[in-house]
Amino acid sequence: MSAILKQRVQYKPLLDKLRTPQELVPLFKDNMYIGWSGFTGVGGPKAVPTALADHVEQNNLKGKLGFNLFVGASADVDIESRWADLNMLRRRAPHQVGKPIANAINDGRTLFFDKHLSMFPQDLTYGFYTRHKQDNPYLDISIIEATGIAPDGSLILGPSVGASPELISYSNKVIIEINTKLPSFEGLHDITPVINPPFRTPYPIVKATDRFGSPTLKINPDQIVAIVESTTLDKVPENTPSDAMSQAIAHHIVEFLEQEVKAGRLPDNLHPLQSGIGNIGNAVVEGLATSNFKDLDVWTEVLQDGFLDFLESGKILSATATSIRLTPAGFDRFFKNWDDFSSRLILRNQTISNHPEVIRRLGVIALNTPVEVDIYGHANSTNVNGSRMLHGLGGSADFLRNAKLSIMHTPSVRKTKVDKFGLSTIVPMATHVDQTEHDLDIIVTEQGLADLRGLAPKERSREIIKKCAHPAYKDLLLDYVTRAESYTAKHKSLHEPHILRDAFKFHTNLEDKGTMRLESWD
Amino acid sequence: MSAILKQRVQYKPLLDKLRTPQELVPLFKDNMYIGWSGFTGVGGPKAVPTALADHVEQNNLKGKLGFNLFVGASADVDIESRWADLNMLRRRAPHQVGKPIANAINDGRTLFFDKHLSMFPQDLTYGFYTRHKQDNPYLDISIIEATGIAPDGSLILGPSVGASPELISYSNKVIIEINTKLPSFEGLHDITPVINPPFRTPYPIVKATDRFGSPTLKINPDQIVAIVESTTLDKVPENTPSDAMSQAIAHHIVEFLEQEVKAGRLPDNLHPLQSGIGNIGNAVVEGLATSNFKDLDVWTEVLQDGFLDFLESGKILSATATSIRLTPAGFDRFFKNWDDFSSRLILRNQTISNHPEVIRRLGVIALNTPVEVDIYGHANSTNVNGSRMLHGLGGSADFLRNAKLSIMHTPSVRKTKVDKFGLSTIVPMATHVDQTEHDLDIIVTEQGLADLRGLAPKERSREIIKKCAHPAYKDLLLDYVTRAESYTAKHKSLHEPHILRDAFKFHTNLEDKGTMRLESWD
Repeated sequence: MSAILKQRVQYKPLLDKLRTPQELVPLFKDNMYIGWSGFTGVGGPKAVPTALADHVEQNNLKGKLGFNLFVGASADVDIESRWADLNMLRRRAPHQVGKPIANAINDGRTLFFDKHLSMFPQDLTYGFYTRHKQDNPYLDISIIEATGIAPDGSLILGPSVGASPELISYSNKVIIEINTKLPSFEGLHDITPVINPPFRTPYPIVKATDRFGSPTLKINPDQIVAIVESTTLDKVPENTPSDAMSQAIAHHIVEFLEQEVKAGRLPDNLHPLQSGIGNIGNAVVEGLATSNFKDLDVWTEVLQDGFLDFLESGKILSATATSIRLTPAGFDRFFKNWDDFSSRLILRNQTISNHPEVIRRLGVIALNTPVEVDIYGHANSTNVNGSRMLHGLGGSADFLRNAKLSIMHTPSVRKTKVDKFGLSTIVPMATHVDQTEHDLDIIVTEQGLADLRGLAPKERSREIIKKCAHPAYKDLLLDYVTRAESYTAKHKSLHEPHILRDAFKFHTNLEDKGTMRLESWD
Repeated sequence: MSAILKQRVQYKPLLDKLRTPQELVPLFKDNMYIGWSGFTGVGGPKAVPTALADHVEQNNLKGKLGFNLFVGASADVDIESRWADLNMLRRRAPHQVGKPIANAINDGRTLFFDKHLSMFPQDLTYGFYTRHKQDNPYLDISIIEATGIAPDGSLILGPSVGASPELISYSNKVIIEINTKLPSFEGLHDITPVINPPFRTPYPIVKATDRFGSPTLKINPDQIVAIVESTTLDKVPENTPSDAMSQAIAHHIVEFLEQEVKAGRLPDNLHPLQSGIGNIGNAVVEGLATSNFKDLDVWTEVLQDGFLDFLESGKILSATATSIRLTPAGFDRFFKNWDDFSSRLILRNQTISNHPEVIRRLGVIALNTPVEVDIYGHANSTNVNGSRMLHGLGGSADFLRNAKLSIMHTPSVRKTKVDKFGLSTIVPMATHVDQTEHDLDIIVTEQGLADLRGLAPKERSREIIKKCAHPAYKDLLLDYVTRAESYTAKHKSLHEPHILRDAFKFHTNLEDKGTMRLESWD
């Protein structure tokens, strides 16, 4: 037993339950329902899942030891990818990152479903996802990473809270991985107990910095069947830097927010911001950091390195999320400035960070990237060609449905093998709809910004094409619109004009010829 | 001035502002932004809108006097239909009922947009819908029906609250129609003031009967430019009676709820119920009224006659909504039992009755009817063939997204001119998506009930077809599924299998041949 482990486990009776990951392998039976901590690839278990993968590999158990796996969002990419390759993922929800996992889903080896991240943990504790279990409705085992155990036996979590409170509340057995390579994150968390209807009360949050939970995650020590020492760090890839395209998008967004303040529709310091992952998200954060805005707050689901600059610059007063996903360099910076950062950062349950109640009350400004957006303002966040799963819905709809301002940003085109403008992200009809026309206010590409608020569908189509479509597609899209308007005029269906026979011709042309640039509608 | 008017207006200075509707016509200029009270066809203004329609008709002003009209939901059907026929609706949001209005939208004469009913009033007060106004951002005039004025000058509303608080808070001028034919509804309302971010606080509702607002709607008397006496009653058509189809659906739902209680996923008295308008809604209420459930509560947007039986039977303890839409017979019953009913009923702002915060906290059970549902669980609530507007989104997505149990019910087929089973409501792909696969738990037709909770798309398609599709369509739909699975297996897109070329063939066949029963996929 390492000295640091002994020091981190302040509730001493638990030290008797120390096991090696390998000793725990026999607890896991085929087809069990299991939970992992973790959110956006950080804070998940690593030691026991690795031991299980080794076990399957070394004993030729591929296809013979598989699980129904539930995680708050995405788990450690490398470890879960191994599970996917070893066919250990029978069923998975609600979000995943890693090519091998998407491959397993799109090959039909893994049954996957995606659910709003705010709802997934509650629906799990309602028993919805385990209703086919024979013996009892609870998850069989959850594996939770912590950075320590408090003197009262409660858990000091690491870089994410995610669904850990709900997983623990709904598991027969719990294994705790104490990560002794991570510094302690004590003091960063605000953890809310799991209370279901009819016993829920309002969440007393009126500003981003309000706390109403506890700093540690309570657990009945009898539920813990073992503790394990883990010394593996999360692998967080470098952030994608911003480029001319993403900077152009960020510029349009900052300009728009400035206009909204001027028009009196936003206060000088805006409302709390939610921003997604990726190079556009990073460019937006950079854009805001160099803008004239100040005293901002962030209410989001995941914080990345960019937010550290943002916090250091003094532009933002506080930031709250359910996960802090930092690169090794960001991680070092974070712990060097721990006193400052930890006084202004809060990590909460994902049921709180993503809850419509708080998002709508605070008037959050939400920013997110889709796969494609259609001319009437429906967005596809998940399925290429309506069929191929990327990562899952995530919290996109939690934020976009409930935000005061719902903004989707995307490059207007992507290249394909045969055409550098082969794929238009603005399409006649989205092949899968995750965000509806009733949810989105603003669409932005590097070309410009379309403000859809209060517009009828026939106005939206022209606004989106004019402001957002790439020049290579403007005429084609307008052609669809005028043809559809003329067609639906004959059928007295002019509200949201579509020609169903042609609605997906961009996509079928892409499949046939490698580009969405149609030569004819026939 | 009638004696009853004098009695109803308890704040006497307002009596000086009494005008005839005709005297107010000159206040209205072409292209103004105006608001009306009303929700689900009750509680809207009638005298002034009628005078305006008369004015247009008598002076050949058709097309020369039109408005941007905002109402909480649908207004008086007859009066607004006249406005539609007279081209007085330039722009309209967010919901409407009445063939002439839908015709004006689908002919392209009226620009319409639909928005979640919980969000529409707040987005209005954010200035989103009046951002193109030249002079100032407020609505020019709102016309609000009331049943009286309290001694402090505040309004005693009638059978709906709807968006009246927000309309008043965001209007330059207000006209009050005092309806002296309606009994006073004093005591039924719980009206919440309009507070926008960053100043909002939690809504302190933990059970359906909690009140936290005031019984009357506060208004600055200076804002009121005139009061008008109105003596027209709302015309509410008879409820569609239940039939074998709707009773079969109700039976499946009651049985399902009984099973959920038995499995421990619902308490004995369920959670508060939300139910829509129409014969299926009525059948469900009848089914519950004759079930063994008791001590139920209702948390919904509109109450109809059926709920009176339900309340009288003692099965439900309380009911809360934003509107009470009763037939003349229901209305008489309601006022004969005023003491009992009014002690158990509450009417609230639609921003509260439909708010995600409360719906999710209470764990509401939501029931709603779609236009069509697809095999993966996306529902179209608004647009036939993706283009032709029916009524609008209403509160469907407010409830279905946030409910603990989200249930959509529909007959499995409808007849067409040439085929008594010509239209299947279960289709390969919805032509318009208002409710996503991430929002729906249960689909019910008279054929059976599909429980989608925790299922992957490939499981959902088989469950929906097996349980819900009409026998005339089961094979065709399974055929689509197997073809799509084989097609997407080749493209490694097996998550949610679709063939985009074939996805709308049910619909194009219906258009070409009057039935969705395809003879071939080619």
